[in-house]
Amino acid sequence: MELKRANDAEIGKKGRFVRQNNQFIATFGQEEGQLPVEANKYRLLWAPVCPWAHRAVIVRSVLGLDKVISLGTADPIRPKLDHIDWAFTLDENDVDPVLGIHYIGEAYLNADPTYDKRPTVPALVDIETKKVVENDYHNLTYYFERDWKELHKAGAPDLFPEELEEEIRELNDIIFHDINNGVYKAGFARSQEAYEEAYNAVFDRLDWLEERLSQQRYLHGNQLTDSDVRLYTTLARFDVAYYGAFHVNKRRLIDYPNLWAYARDLYQTPGFGDTTDFDGIKKHYFLSTHIDTTEEKIKILPKGPDTSIWLEPSGRAEKFHN
Amino acid sequence: MELKRANDAEIGKKGRFVRQNNQFIATFGQEEGQLPVEANKYRLLWAPVCPWAHRAVIVRSVLGLDKVISLGTADPIRPKLDHIDWAFTLDENDVDPVLGIHYIGEAYLNADPTYDKRPTVPALVDIETKKVVENDYHNLTYYFERDWKELHKAGAPDLFPEELEEEIRELNDIIFHDINNGVYKAGFARSQEAYEEAYNAVFDRLDWLEERLSQQRYLHGNQLTDSDVRLYTTLARFDVAYYGAFHVNKRRLIDYPNLWAYARDLYQTPGFGDTTDFDGIKKHYFLSTHIDTTEEKIKILPKGPDTSIWLEPSGRAEKFHN
Repeated sequence: MELKRANDAEIGKKGRFVRQNNQFIATFGQEEGQLPVEANKYRLLWAPVCPWAHRAVIVRSVLGLDKVISLGTADPIRPKLDHIDWAFTLDENDVDPVLGIHYIGEAYLNADPTYDKRPTVPALVDIETKKVVENDYHNLTYYFERDWKELHKAGAPDLFPEELEEEIRELNDIIFHDINNGVYKAGFARSQEAYEEAYNAVFDRLDWLEERLSQQRYLHGNQLTDSDVRLYTTLARFDVAYYGAFHVNKRRLIDYPNLWAYARDLYQTPGFGDTTDFDGIKKHYFLSTHIDTTEEKIKILPKGPDTSIWLEPSGRAEKFHN
Repeated sequence: MELKRANDAEIGKKGRFVRQNNQFIATFGQEEGQLPVEANKYRLLWAPVCPWAHRAVIVRSVLGLDKVISLGTADPIRPKLDHIDWAFTLDENDVDPVLGIHYIGEAYLNADPTYDKRPTVPALVDIETKKVVENDYHNLTYYFERDWKELHKAGAPDLFPEELEEEIRELNDIIFHDINNGVYKAGFARSQEAYEEAYNAVFDRLDWLEERLSQQRYLHGNQLTDSDVRLYTTLARFDVAYYGAFHVNKRRLIDYPNLWAYARDLYQTPGFGDTTDFDGIKKHYFLSTHIDTTEEKIKILPKGPDTSIWLEPSGRAEKFHN
C-alpha cells in the first residue's frame, strides 16, 4: 500500500501551493454518525513542529483536556520513505506505546485502506479500533472548546464564546489564508510570482495585526480566544523556521513591537510555551528531506536564532490593565 | 580543458571548509618580476556578490583609481557548467567588451593553461595579454593603497597609513578568519561540529567588534582605513545573504546597535553603498546552483529583507565629533 508522495499533487495554477483537504471530518455529539465525547477514548497524534496540530495541543492543555485525551508525539524529522509520513521514532522501539504503530499513516490506513493523501497531524485516533476518526484541524479546536465542555477542568477559560463566534470564525479565516497557510504558500510556491503574492499577503496582514494588537491585549479584546491560539502557532515558528526556510524575510516577528510582545505574552501562558518545541521545529524545517533538498551529507541544523528572549517580560497585562 | 569543480577539494578535517590559496600573487614596482604601476594597463574583474572582490572595488573607488583601472563585471548567477566559473552574461553578447572573453576562467587559462582551481575574483588582468596577473585579494587593496599612490585622486584618504600598518594587518587577520571567511566556514561546513565552531567564532567576534565600535567611529579610531573596508563587505552581505543561506542566524547585523550604525555610516560613504548590489548578492546566494541545491524549478529569490533602511542616518559623525 503506497501512501502518496507529498506536494506535487498540491501545486495549482501558476505554481501556487494548494493544501489538500481533510478526509475525516466527523463532529462530536450524541447523534447517529457523531463521535461520542468520552474520557480516555481517544489519542491525539501530533508532531510538535506542525502548527495545525499545535493548535489542538494548546487548546487541549489550556482547557485541561490533557487529563482525558492522551497524546502521541511523532518525530519532527520525517523518515526516509518513498512517501511522506510521520514516525514514532522518539518512542521506545520506534512505536507509539498506546497504539503500537510505527507511522501515523498506519492509523489512516486502518480507517481507510484506500487512503492515499499525506497522513497529517493532528489526528484523533480511537484507541480501541486504532483508526483515525478526526483530522479536521479547521474545526477540532472548536469541538474541544464547545462540545467537550463537560470534560474541561474547573475554571477553564471560554476560548470560543457564543457571542464572539462570528467574529472569531471571520478572523480565523483571515489568519488561516494570509498567515497560517500564507507562509506555506510562500515556502511551497513553485513560481516567483506565486511566492511574491503569498509574501505580500503575509506582511500586509502582519502590519494589520500589529496595529490591532497595539490597541488591545488579545485579538478579540481583553480575553484569550481561539483566534489567539491560531495566530500564535505561526508566530512561534516565524523567526526560527519560516523566515529562513520559507523566505518570508521582509521582517522578523521580533521587529514588530506589538506582535512580538503579544507572542511573548502567550508563550508565557501555560499551555503555550510549554508545548512549543523550538528545537523540534528547527529540526523539521532544516533537516527533513522534503523541505530542504540539500544533500544529506551537508545538512546543518542552524544554531540560531536565540530563543531565550521569549522569556523576556511582555508588559501586556500591565499595559492593558488586564 | 576542465576547470576544477568547486568546494569538494576545499573540505578538510571534520568537514571544515578550507579556502583554496591564490596562485597569482605578484607585487607592484619597478623591480624585475614586479608588475608596473601604470594607468589603463589593467582591467579589474569582479562580481558584485563577492566580498573579496568588493574590497578591491571599494578601495579603487575611494582612492580615485577608477579613472585608471577599468572594471569588468560578472553575473552574480553562475553559469550551469560542469565546473564553477564567473560569466559576462550581463554584457552585450555575453562577452566582456574589453577582453572579449565569456568567462573569467578564460583569463586564468590564458595565464596558465594548467590552471585547475576555481577562477576567482578579484582578478587583475593585463588588457594587452588578456592574462590574469594578480588574484591575491589578501594584498590587492594594500597595493592599491600604497604602491599606486601616484595615481590616487587629489585628496584621497590614506587607508593604510604606515604608522598603523601593524595594527591594520593584525586586525585584518582577525577579521578575515572570524568574519570574512568565518561566515563561509559556517556556510560551507560539511559537519554540524565544523558549522557550530565557525558560528561561535563569528558571533563572539561580532560581540567584540560591537564593543570596539561603541567607542570610536571606525575600527582604528577616527580615520577610515583598510580594515573598515574589509569588515564592511561582510556586514553588507550579512542580513541579505549569510544569515539565511549560511545559517549564521544567532542575530542579524541590525540587532547590533553600534555595528549597524557603523555599517550604515560606511554605506553612505562614496565608494561603499554605490558599489553594493544587494539584489545581485541575493541572486547569487539563492539562485546560483552550487550553494542552494534546491531543484531548479522551485528556485525562489527572497523578496526581503528591506534594504531601504541602510539609508537611515547613522549619527556616527555627530556622536564621535568627526
